[in-house]
Amino acid sequence: MNNAALIGGGVIGGGWAARFLLHGWNVSIFDPHPETERRVAEVLENARQSFPKICEANLPNEGRLTFADSIEETVSEAAWIQESVSERIELKHKVLAEVQAHSSTNAIIGSSTSGFTPSDLQIGAARPEQIIVAHPFNPVYLLPLVELVASDKSPNEFIDRAYNIVLSIGMKPLRVRKEIDAHIADRFLEAVWREALWLVKDGVATTEEVDDAIRFGFGLRWAQMGLFETYRIAGGEAGMKHFLQQFGPTLKFPWTKLMDVPDLDDELVNTIATQSDEQSGKHSIRELERIRDKNLVGIMRALKENDWGAGQLLRRHDVRLSENHGSEA
Amino acid sequence: MNNAALIGGGVIGGGWAARFLLHGWNVSIFDPHPETERRVAEVLENARQSFPKICEANLPNEGRLTFADSIEETVSEAAWIQESVSERIELKHKVLAEVQAHSSTNAIIGSSTSGFTPSDLQIGAARPEQIIVAHPFNPVYLLPLVELVASDKSPNEFIDRAYNIVLSIGMKPLRVRKEIDAHIADRFLEAVWREALWLVKDGVATTEEVDDAIRFGFGLRWAQMGLFETYRIAGGEAGMKHFLQQFGPTLKFPWTKLMDVPDLDDELVNTIATQSDEQSGKHSIRELERIRDKNLVGIMRALKENDWGAGQLLRRHDVRLSENHGSEA
Repeated sequence: MNNAALIGGGVIGGGWAARFLLHGWNVSIFDPHPETERRVAEVLENARQSFPKICEANLPNEGRLTFADSIEETVSEAAWIQESVSERIELKHKVLAEVQAHSSTNAIIGSSTSGFTPSDLQIGAARPEQIIVAHPFNPVYLLPLVELVASDKSPNEFIDRAYNIVLSIGMKPLRVRKEIDAHIADRFLEAVWREALWLVKDGVATTEEVDDAIRFGFGLRWAQMGLFETYRIAGGEAGMKHFLQQFGPTLKFPWTKLMDVPDLDDELVNTIATQSDEQSGKHSIRELERIRDKNLVGIMRALKENDWGAGQLLRRHDVRLSENHGSEA
Repeated sequence: MNNAALIGGGVIGGGWAARFLLHGWNVSIFDPHPETERRVAEVLENARQSFPKICEANLPNEGRLTFADSIEETVSEAAWIQESVSERIELKHKVLAEVQAHSSTNAIIGSSTSGFTPSDLQIGAARPEQIIVAHPFNPVYLLPLVELVASDKSPNEFIDRAYNIVLSIGMKPLRVRKEIDAHIADRFLEAVWREALWLVKDGVATTEEVDDAIRFGFGLRWAQMGLFETYRIAGGEAGMKHFLQQFGPTLKFPWTKLMDVPDLDDELVNTIATQSDEQSGKHSIRELERIRDKNLVGIMRALKENDWGAGQLLRRHDVRLSENHGSEA
């Protein structure tokens, strides 16, 4: 029987819960926050509404969800343990030590950290090789990407097992070759975030204008092809090499302010919060979640029809699910 | 009669041609490149295939396309003149001087520049106030965004006219409040580009892995909601302000290498070109264009069904087209 243990039941932990439950795993969650059950229930409700719209194969019977009173109770039976607590390294070390004291030495211990490397997390661990980064993206029940990062302490077959489990719950494992702060995707997000803070601080754009500059332009491109494939097309028949050679000089231009980090002081926080209220305040967070999910479902269904990118992954997931059902039935 | 003059008939000029022609404007193109007619014809073919799939109202009769032998011949009758030549400021100054020598003083002169400000472009101009930035995104016939940037020399009613024309050809004009190198969107693209070059150079990721980190994760989010609205949801009920306050410390982390600019030397160019061939070489550029366009059409149709973002814009465009047809018929 597949058991997953989740330490942390916020929006990320709840998303992992949905992924595992919908694929037949039993899930035990530990989070001392008094609202955990309600919060997880809300994420699960969103997932139950949306995931079946992008997954056309029959899903297995949903697993059993329980809430535990301690880490010990949560992890004792688990084959996959996922830590999704706040980004404080002392807290993560404390949680991981407790996890390792009570879990199977064979279990995979993944961390949802967006910033820390596996080596950071492994400091002081009883069995460092058991701890890897498995970094998902919100909403976890719809966005496929999981960055898998391991230190050189983890054996290959261990990482392969993690890879296959991530794949089996309909996600896209991206095995990151080297340990690096913030892995891959969040380096991009951080770069854009810093630049966006400058633009708002300098009064060049409001939060809504920043968002519009993304979602009416390159955001539409990036839902289906990334940076390099897009530029390959822009380069045209002359080829990628020729295209790249034109870029050299531009890199010397003062086109970003990223060498400098803006101070996220009270004034800037207030400016952004106020503009964000004006931009999106007419919708509650729950409404925005539903709008986002409906759009993601529509986009992924469109890509599925074209058998491309996230849609291709979903098609393959349908086939895998059908095959497994066939053999288990 | 609406006449547009395009200086430069590459992939961007060709995209502008398609936007104007499909909305009933006559278009005259000047580009001394010997392959201009073929290149424009290819872009037009892509546009004729794809744009009617996202625009459900009847389009007016297509305008007339001509190729001129000189800037003088191109611009003489034009209400909108769009410069889309290479990003070299001396070349742009030369072209703009020639344009102003022969065009109506009333015409809008837009530049497709991704980097230069209107004030940069206006240096030495006979009528600086006539020159604005109108920066589109490839493929111009599908992606709606146009960044409109004016210096304080241009009167408001002039910019309003430009705004309405951009809107009338189914695009999303974003009026940028301040002149700044690379406007808004390309500051983000540049930040991501620099970071991507580092990741490939340092062997952290291949071009395909960079693309996958985008298109299986945040790229899907950004097709419909930008940075701030997405983070607003992530912040949940505690609100944007609370969410932002957590971000302060992260900004001090070494999460980007953007303070430093990688050298785009032969070695890095070769690495990227080789990886890109491995990633995408099985498709020709023409095939990749068609895949991209099919995906963009699917994504935008999905958003249209949800009346959101780029899809909401398209719905409004349908209404506008139907009304105009109604009154003209």
